[in-house]
Amino acid sequence: MEKSYYAVIFTSKRTEGDKGYAHMANKMEELARQQAGFLGIESAQGESNITVSYWESLEAIKSWKGNTAHLYTQEKGKQDWYSWFKVRICKVEREYEFFKD
Amino acid sequence: MEKSYYAVIFTSKRTEGDKGYAHMANKMEELARQQAGFLGIESAQGESNITVSYWESLEAIKSWKGNTAHLYTQEKGKQDWYSWFKVRICKVEREYEFFKD
Repeated sequence: MEKSYYAVIFTSKRTEGDKGYAHMANKMEELARQQAGFLGIESAQGESNITVSYWESLEAIKSWKGNTAHLYTQEKGKQDWYSWFKVRICKVEREYEFFKD
Repeated sequence: MEKSYYAVIFTSKRTEGDKGYAHMANKMEELARQQAGFLGIESAQGESNITVSYWESLEAIKSWKGNTAHLYTQEKGKQDWYSWFKVRICKVEREYEFFKD
């Protein structure tokens, strides 16, 4: 049996202006990559921005959520960077991948 | 208890050129919105493109996957539009939403 894993879907709308956001986003991605149980991350921009990170377990997600630097960033995000966001913690139940020959 | 629901995370890399892709993408989104059990859809562009659609049940996802027009589009996608894609079917276990005052 395949080992199951988790996805955190973070969808957001930004406030106006950068206000240190781009710098923070890079730092946080760097930091996330160093966490135990981190599997990957993908980001894209649109009407809402979407970032999906992948994790081995709910414990790994919880531990990243409680990371000190990340906690500070979460507060700053609410104050300065986001007008709206939604976090969904999901169990990946099935997957299918296609590669062009 | 909250009713659980499902997310389909579709990440993809496009081939060169439009080749009818934009027209198809709009049509498919329109069609998805009409399916039973459809809850919402979000798309964003980046190094990989990310589209997340939300559904009431696995049955609703299966039924959309088997929709005749969608089946045709899935084949066309493999032939013409995508160099790579990955589909992940996920159960949303927890969610949190933030609105700026």
